[in-house]
Amino acid sequence: MRIGILGAGQLGQMLALAGYPLGNRFSFLDPGGRPSADIGHVLTGSDSEAVAAFSEASDLITYEFEHLDVALVEALEAKMPVFPSNRALKVCQHRGEEKALFSSLSIPTPAYRLVGSAAELEAAVKALGAPVVAKSVTEGYDGKGQAVLRAPDEAFDAWNAIGHQQLVVEAFVEFEREVSIIAVRSRTGELAFYPMAENHHHEGILRYSMAPMPDVSEAVQRQAEAYIRALLDALEYVGVLTLELFQNADGTLLANEMAPRVHNSGHWTQDGAVTSQFENHLRAIQGLPLGSTRALHPTCMINLIGKDVDTEAVLSEPDAHLHRYGKEERAGRKIGHINLTAPDHAELFERLDRVRSNVPDAPAPRFLARP
Amino acid sequence: MRIGILGAGQLGQMLALAGYPLGNRFSFLDPGGRPSADIGHVLTGSDSEAVAAFSEASDLITYEFEHLDVALVEALEAKMPVFPSNRALKVCQHRGEEKALFSSLSIPTPAYRLVGSAAELEAAVKALGAPVVAKSVTEGYDGKGQAVLRAPDEAFDAWNAIGHQQLVVEAFVEFEREVSIIAVRSRTGELAFYPMAENHHHEGILRYSMAPMPDVSEAVQRQAEAYIRALLDALEYVGVLTLELFQNADGTLLANEMAPRVHNSGHWTQDGAVTSQFENHLRAIQGLPLGSTRALHPTCMINLIGKDVDTEAVLSEPDAHLHRYGKEERAGRKIGHINLTAPDHAELFERLDRVRSNVPDAPAPRFLARP
Repeated sequence: MRIGILGAGQLGQMLALAGYPLGNRFSFLDPGGRPSADIGHVLTGSDSEAVAAFSEASDLITYEFEHLDVALVEALEAKMPVFPSNRALKVCQHRGEEKALFSSLSIPTPAYRLVGSAAELEAAVKALGAPVVAKSVTEGYDGKGQAVLRAPDEAFDAWNAIGHQQLVVEAFVEFEREVSIIAVRSRTGELAFYPMAENHHHEGILRYSMAPMPDVSEAVQRQAEAYIRALLDALEYVGVLTLELFQNADGTLLANEMAPRVHNSGHWTQDGAVTSQFENHLRAIQGLPLGSTRALHPTCMINLIGKDVDTEAVLSEPDAHLHRYGKEERAGRKIGHINLTAPDHAELFERLDRVRSNVPDAPAPRFLARP
Repeated sequence: MRIGILGAGQLGQMLALAGYPLGNRFSFLDPGGRPSADIGHVLTGSDSEAVAAFSEASDLITYEFEHLDVALVEALEAKMPVFPSNRALKVCQHRGEEKALFSSLSIPTPAYRLVGSAAELEAAVKALGAPVVAKSVTEGYDGKGQAVLRAPDEAFDAWNAIGHQQLVVEAFVEFEREVSIIAVRSRTGELAFYPMAENHHHEGILRYSMAPMPDVSEAVQRQAEAYIRALLDALEYVGVLTLELFQNADGTLLANEMAPRVHNSGHWTQDGAVTSQFENHLRAIQGLPLGSTRALHPTCMINLIGKDVDTEAVLSEPDAHLHRYGKEERAGRKIGHINLTAPDHAELFERLDRVRSNVPDAPAPRFLARP
């Protein structure tokens, strides 16, 4: 099976590495023209010639990022199977539609307003109560196009700084921690859920994900599964879907956002679960049986942001797995990650202290359950 | 680090898949001109132009099979680091030298004679006592160039059938089982040993490897480690080395042969050990710290020989991992393998029965420890 991937970054690369053993071969189309996948057949551009070459080289198409031209995806869907569908893509491209879907499925979210002007933004801050987070409804990624407003009178500056026509304004949630759940649904309808991960963002960028969480109740895991199952069903979704949530002190969950793809908070599955999110995404879109999503051991994923790490220092920890993407160093850029495993969480935290001391600019991990 | 691999089959492909996350990129030189690796930059031929292009594309060279022109390896060694060295290669290319090395290191082997004529072969059968196994001293691979002689008067026919100038003749060993140990030695001198595997060959081709073995004593594991450590030290070896052994009913071990490379009986490590043999080989030749060789769970590797398997049937076992090589079906050809894992050996055998029923022409597994 020849699989075409829209986008050609590290997620595409890791999909390809997971797919070779299944007998898959890969083509990539990078509309932006800055591919880093460096595996398979990489095409760039979005003109009709590039798209034709890409579709001719593929039996089945998927994508590694959601900020895609929907018309391009629809054109490809007219020719061949594309998973996830353009419907999932459209919802995930628009925070307003995403929130509306959450609400329609009774998935709790932070209180929010959609606003189309600085004045509406100011009114929203007053209605929701400062502080609030204002985000452009489209093209948000890794903290870009966002602002925190601490008072209504910051609305004008924030509106100009973000510079979009429509914003979603969210009440600031005093959450205990950020978590995510990753689920996968095959073309056959088969469903599987990974154990939830606890995530630590810093300056809007994911820094750590730990899974399984040592202190998550079965009830909370089931609740997260129920929410993401509702999304999978509503969208007739095929592939890996990620739902990021806030967890409150009382254990309840609020949906933050979702991503129609393999996700950074699921990289731990490469070395921490029986079947990685990458392999299960490929199984799902090919209609193959899903692999076990069971965790093998506690795992912490450490992102390498902007600066590379000393290889020897990392690998001198025998249970550390390095995953470089082959990307050059650049401030704020995800250039790799480390998956660190341990037989139990206490040992994992000890190892994490040793390993992160070698990771440039790594913040102190902030995990709720730290023993 | 740009790594050049001599040979471009499935072992090279799996090395590349393991090396991408370390930041390695790969070139291959397939002297035989039938590459199947289908990843990285694949060159074919052994003329000076191909060799020059290969060496210019590489910072460091290794190989995935040992039946290489030593002069080619020596020429490359004059230009750049090549691991393992030509010394290991020469020994492994000649069964006579291999046996002599075993003997010089006091590693027990089956009684043997080197013969250079049908008459000498006949004499050897008489001296060792029939049955014996006669093998060409060079280019033996997967049962080719071998014959079993059940009486001295079969010597003339066997000599002609094998058609080599020198043979090694071995007393037939009434072993309990075939086992192997895989070790890895880094350029830094760091050493690591994988748990031994029990191997089941059928018609001269490996069919199953199971590791860890449920019934191997710590003493036997340590003995195997001592033997392979002696070989690593004697050869100042760098990379993964495999030693195949016979185990007698009393637990003692006899060395059969060794391979200076990642090995089919170590494929279980991809899904059954913390660090795969492929990743550890790459770490070793780059002088990086080695990853843990600890087994995560009992694993059985099932080879796919000649005929492909129904993907859905295999993957419907949630802990089965399929590894296809992208090769066409052909009688006797290794086209892929399945790694099957389980929480314990009893469950592993149950799963093995289910999975192998879907593997074409799979013999009944013959494991000593079957509960």
